[in-house]
Amino acid sequence: MQLMKASWMEVEDYLRTSKAVLIPIGSVEQHGPNGLLGTDALCPELIAHRAAQQAKMLVGPTFNVGCAQHHLAFAGSITLRPSTMIAAIQDWTASLRRHGFERIYWLNGHGGNIATINAAFAEVYAEMSFQSHAPAQDLYMKLQNWWQLPGVAELCKELYPIGDGMHATASEVAVTYAGYPEAQKQVDMSPRIAPMGEIRHAHAYRQTFADGRIGSDPSQATVEGGERIIQLAAKSLLADFQTFSV
Amino acid sequence: MQLMKASWMEVEDYLRTSKAVLIPIGSVEQHGPNGLLGTDALCPELIAHRAAQQAKMLVGPTFNVGCAQHHLAFAGSITLRPSTMIAAIQDWTASLRRHGFERIYWLNGHGGNIATINAAFAEVYAEMSFQSHAPAQDLYMKLQNWWQLPGVAELCKELYPIGDGMHATASEVAVTYAGYPEAQKQVDMSPRIAPMGEIRHAHAYRQTFADGRIGSDPSQATVEGGERIIQLAAKSLLADFQTFSV
Amino acid sequence: MQLMKASWMEVEDYLRTSKAVLIPIGSVEQHGPNGLLGTDALCPELIAHRAAQQAKMLVGPTFNVGCAQHHLAFAGSITLRPSTMIAAIQDWTASLRRHGFERIYWLNGHGGNIATINAAFAEVYAEMSFQSHAPAQDLYMKLQNWWQLPGVAELCKELYPIGDGMHATASEVAVTYAGYPEAQKQVDMSPRIAPMGEIRHAHAYRQTFADGRIGSDPSQATVEGGERIIQLAAKSLLADFQTFSV
Amino acid sequence: MQLMKASWMEVEDYLRTSKAVLIPIGSVEQHGPNGLLGTDALCPELIAHRAAQQAKMLVGPTFNVGCAQHHLAFAGSITLRPSTMIAAIQDWTASLRRHGFERIYWLNGHGGNIATINAAFAEVYAEMSFQSHAPAQDLYMKLQNWWQLPGVAELCKELYPIGDGMHATASEVAVTYAGYPEAQKQVDMSPRIAPMGEIRHAHAYRQTFADGRIGSDPSQATVEGGERIIQLAAKSLLADFQTFSV
Amino acid sequence: MQLMKASWMEVEDYLRTSKAVLIPIGSVEQHGPNGLLGTDALCPELIAHRAAQQAKMLVGPTFNVGCAQHHLAFAGSITLRPSTMIAAIQDWTASLRRHGFERIYWLNGHGGNIATINAAFAEVYAEMSFQSHAPAQDLYMKLQNWWQLPGVAELCKELYPIGDGMHATASEVAVTYAGYPEAQKQVDMSPRIAPMGEIRHAHAYRQTFADGRIGSDPSQATVEGGERIIQLAAKSLLADFQTFSV
Amino acid sequence: MQLMKASWMEVEDYLRTSKAVLIPIGSVEQHGPNGLLGTDALCPELIAHRAAQQAKMLVGPTFNVGCAQHHLAFAGSITLRPSTMIAAIQDWTASLRRHGFERIYWLNGHGGNIATINAAFAEVYAEMSFQSHAPAQDLYMKLQNWWQLPGVAELCKELYPIGDGMHATASEVAVTYAGYPEAQKQVDMSPRIAPMGEIRHAHAYRQTFADGRIGSDPSQATVEGGERIIQLAAKSLLADFQTFSV
Repeated sequence: MQLMKASWMEVEDYLRTSKAVLIPIGSVEQHGPNGLLGTDALCPELIAHRAAQQAKMLVGPTFNVGCAQHHLAFAGSITLRPSTMIAAIQDWTASLRRHGFERIYWLNGHGGNIATINAAFAEVYAEMSFQSHAPAQDLYMKLQNWWQLPGVAELCKELYPIGDGMHATASEVAVTYAGYPEAQKQVDMSPRIAPMGEIRHAHAYRQTFADGRIGSDPSQATVEGGERIIQLAAKSLLADFQTFSV
Repeated sequence: MQLMKASWMEVEDYLRTSKAVLIPIGSVEQHGPNGLLGTDALCPELIAHRAAQQAKMLVGPTFNVGCAQHHLAFAGSITLRPSTMIAAIQDWTASLRRHGFERIYWLNGHGGNIATINAAFAEVYAEMSFQSHAPAQDLYMKLQNWWQLPGVAELCKELYPIGDGMHATASEVAVTYAGYPEAQKQVDMSPRIAPMGEIRHAHAYRQTFADGRIGSDPSQATVEGGERIIQLAAKSLLADFQTFSV
Repeated sequence: MQLMKASWMEVEDYLRTSKAVLIPIGSVEQHGPNGLLGTDALCPELIAHRAAQQAKMLVGPTFNVGCAQHHLAFAGSITLRPSTMIAAIQDWTASLRRHGFERIYWLNGHGGNIATINAAFAEVYAEMSFQSHAPAQDLYMKLQNWWQLPGVAELCKELYPIGDGMHATASEVAVTYAGYPEAQKQVDMSPRIAPMGEIRHAHAYRQTFADGRIGSDPSQATVEGGERIIQLAAKSLLADFQTFSV
Repeated sequence: MQLMKASWMEVEDYLRTSKAVLIPIGSVEQHGPNGLLGTDALCPELIAHRAAQQAKMLVGPTFNVGCAQHHLAFAGSITLRPSTMIAAIQDWTASLRRHGFERIYWLNGHGGNIATINAAFAEVYAEMSFQSHAPAQDLYMKLQNWWQLPGVAELCKELYPIGDGMHATASEVAVTYAGYPEAQKQVDMSPRIAPMGEIRHAHAYRQTFADGRIGSDPSQATVEGGERIIQLAAKSLLADFQTFSV
Repeated sequence: MQLMKASWMEVEDYLRTSKAVLIPIGSVEQHGPNGLLGTDALCPELIAHRAAQQAKMLVGPTFNVGCAQHHLAFAGSITLRPSTMIAAIQDWTASLRRHGFERIYWLNGHGGNIATINAAFAEVYAEMSFQSHAPAQDLYMKLQNWWQLPGVAELCKELYPIGDGMHATASEVAVTYAGYPEAQKQVDMSPRIAPMGEIRHAHAYRQTFADGRIGSDPSQATVEGGERIIQLAAKSLLADFQTFSV
Repeated sequence: MQLMKASWMEVEDYLRTSKAVLIPIGSVEQHGPNGLLGTDALCPELIAHRAAQQAKMLVGPTFNVGCAQHHLAFAGSITLRPSTMIAAIQDWTASLRRHGFERIYWLNGHGGNIATINAAFAEVYAEMSFQSHAPAQDLYMKLQNWWQLPGVAELCKELYPIGDGMHATASEVAVTYAGYPEAQKQVDMSPRIAPMGEIRHAHAYRQTFADGRIGSDPSQATVEGGERIIQLAAKSLLADFQTFSV
């Protein structure tokens, strides 16, 4: 069930049998010459929605803009400051807890979000930890990167043994192409495989990674490859979410 | 053009001829027995995407969670605190300005957002106003509620002369049904037209508005009605955005 | 009763029969060539103090500096950032609630404050709404612009049918002249009626509105006119406050 | 000149010959059985306004609500959190600097404000200090408690040799009586001289100081005594402000 | 007992007989040509650790970086903004209260910290004061500058009758030399006694105080002098802490 | 060179040949029955100080209190909220950059700090990234956990092949014992090897990990083992810091 398309009564029903909800969380940032700016938000959203078609799982709205300061030298990238993102995750969590949710599963699409999401978890937990009495309502927060769901890395490696890369990967571009075939872009990559390097601020990033990619050749991305990844990831996700729910 | 499905190079191209971008901004909150929790985000998104199919207009990601504290007594509603929302709008704006955007058009889907969006504009402008020198890069921010686009109120009145209402309106539910026909819900409204009243905190809200609606009978909503609204609103939007862009 | 001139014992007495308090809230900002910088704080203060002479009504201290970023290009204007103003309104409210006040009536003197005051209300209510239990102590917040008290707009129109305007209005200048006749200033207006336009940051404001006025000819302001407005507004206010108090 | 009753043009004129401005800063808090809640704001305001009648000195709006958390167990007291007060002082200062003021003299009426005002100065200065280049526009901030103006303590001691006290002092109550004779209150003090003690939170404060006073017998306060204090303090202030201005 | 070298079980034991803890709080900032950057943190730490060897007293970690914005023009100085320092003191206090500590004694080594520490106390107390019910767990916060412990000023005066000064004093440098004899530095002072003056931002500070000292000749500092100060201060501290503990 | 024991002139000298500085960063939190509360701050401090004896490397003050919310159910643990820690790291960084440092190496002693330190880096970089011009002064931030310095994990494994564990490890306790032999504690562990599990808030933590340890038997810790680790880690650190410095 997608929360955005459900009524409050349907969510109230859902809560009678489950206290768990999934939030896709991503970023809006450049993904190289042929990748979509929304890639990191669209990937976990596509996988979660696919999974939700197959079993009872409530998928909340997508937390679409995350930590992308290092991409700001490329047009269209949007970032929150980490402190803003922490405040927003606090608010989303407080809202969901208000309804009785006790288990919030954050399906993440962006490596650059990991630190801030975990910091936000600590910020939320700290409020409980400062209290000397146990909380009336318990809380479990889980951060899961979609590319680390069981089996996914292996499949990506099989599909794109060379040049899957670190950013604007062939895999993630493929997932978005499977979800939005009309958004495919044909661009010749030069060099074919982008360089590797370290990430700091946006000015340094653009100097190191001229077209935005890190270590990847995303021209390999295909709808078919993406579809295979979505299928597998959705299946893995369902199993993991089930375990988390109880 | 949808920013989420564009590459950074395509956005860079767009910036060569326009400094204007549109951001749909909404809320995730109960919309009565047959309305979608995502209504206020989905309406401006649907209208903006429709418009963007017809002319050059860049539509950014949807700012989906807004100010919905008064709806928190109904399952599934999610809110930001206004102070968090101000910080997030600051960050989105700073990111867009970084790329050269000077005109940001916020197409709003939620009355409860209006105050905080305007407060955020003042927060952003204040930074410029504290400086004694004129800004190197100018900035125009516009807030436009979709239901106040030219002609839209008249059409809604024509479609739903009785019981369009104030919250969970027949019009907005119709728009989402047109966008997502599979999400239609058949629910008998009781009373047929919901009461009117004032809005404070969530506890008072639920006491006053038992099923969440204010003054509306959204069971009148149809895909056809919604489609007519989207068409008209998209046309009005395009004209207004064009004017704003220059 | 004016809180500033009352003792705590007198306020404690007051609370035995009423849980309502009024806070005049304004701004310190340019009001054109002959208007006082304090106009927006002085108007609601004068009206509230007049009303408090006629019936039991507790008037708190004036929240004098508000949202005036757009006026900063004119000497003497002082602003809070909206985020600061929200924090301050939270603190005033928390203090008043501590004493048992449950109804806080904000009599506003500045259009530019409206958004931020409403955002502050939502920030305060959100704390209550995040709780799953109803608040032990209820809270009603009302924002009332003095120029929208019943009958006031009509009187202003009657007094100044042409050129009352939008900022540095003849009406508000008149009110301050009635309150502080010694502060009257004779200045020829040029043009007689100031232009209209849109408000953004301070640099743009000064370019559009050369002497600060918007659409007004405040040289029409007289002590007599102001006195009539104060009398009527005070009467309207008393009635409205009474209704709000119970 | 009072900024609140001046026009922006008059302030602009003032700036041609002086870069200095005075801000009365106080608190709204209980002042015992016969003292006014506004005492700490009214005292510096009365003294500053008196001084401004005698020589060129610009007096800004009164920063009326300060740090009064310890008084919250007495009805009518209002406080800012120190962090809010710091933000507000930052905003007032940034606004005044925008107009060219370089010397801001804070005439303080409340001992409980001293720490936070000084912290706010450090917060403002820190922004300049983090820069490796000297500021384009210099800044001098001075905190002056009115009761420590040259000669004032001696006069208070002469007027009220016994029981002037530490809070709700005979002197400060006298100053407000001189300013607002209609607000005088006749209350028998019991005990005649209040106890001394330490200040923590509001609950402890009320237990230690049953009627709010600390060490004082403010029933000695008279209009005549207050008038003498105002006269002397205003004279001292003018001299000190003059020195500060250049 | 030093908390940093204790186990949680040892602290739990300690809490069975005392609810009091001491936190050394200092600053990292230039201390003239021969003084250590860590002086203000090391002095209270040395004194507290010495005292803790002689009787039961729990000494927590040293809050080492404080308010030093005015020293930033000298290499190595590190500051917190006052607002950050307030937040940190809130967190330390909340943590200690969580374990049952009710009395927190802050032994301060830096005059520039006093305002912000007191503001932080008010911020912490305000949370309690906004509640209408008395706190379940009481709280006593004490700020004590080490140089104002009984007898210490007299000893410093005896040791360094001329040129002990206001910053980078002979006394404080001596204390650090006694604690860390290997860190002694031989530097000729020129002028022998540094000038006096007022403190604002870092740029002005460096212009007024060319080598960082204020009014002092710290070349007089010796290990022996420092040792005498530590011994006396530790003894005074123990007595004062004992009194505070109950 | 230790910054805390250096004068500002010595730091100024250092800056003539290096723009790099090391900050030990840790936590104050329970480390099981025989571990020190200061372990996570003391380990990187001991290693850094040892290294600084062997080559030119400036070691700043230790950032001693970090993210320890999950340990708050054990006496003596102290935490910052992540948002406070981010603000503090911003301030430390801004201070160091003010002096010309461009490379800040954070030697970390606590796994629970990693997320928030990385979030703080992004917060700092974001300020630079929002600017369209490259920064006048560049910045490199590195986070290095001491237990991941080359060779260290292998040595720990060799010393404690069974039960080194995840928290209150034999290795880290050994390091502190080597640094502070007088603080050794003899405690029988029961069970000998502590359980593994997941980390959430403090209440859950204490239920899962009864005496605080995770997966470890720190009764194996010896001064000799700790000394070997310090020696190796210091050597590795020096090499890594050298590489980072240029």
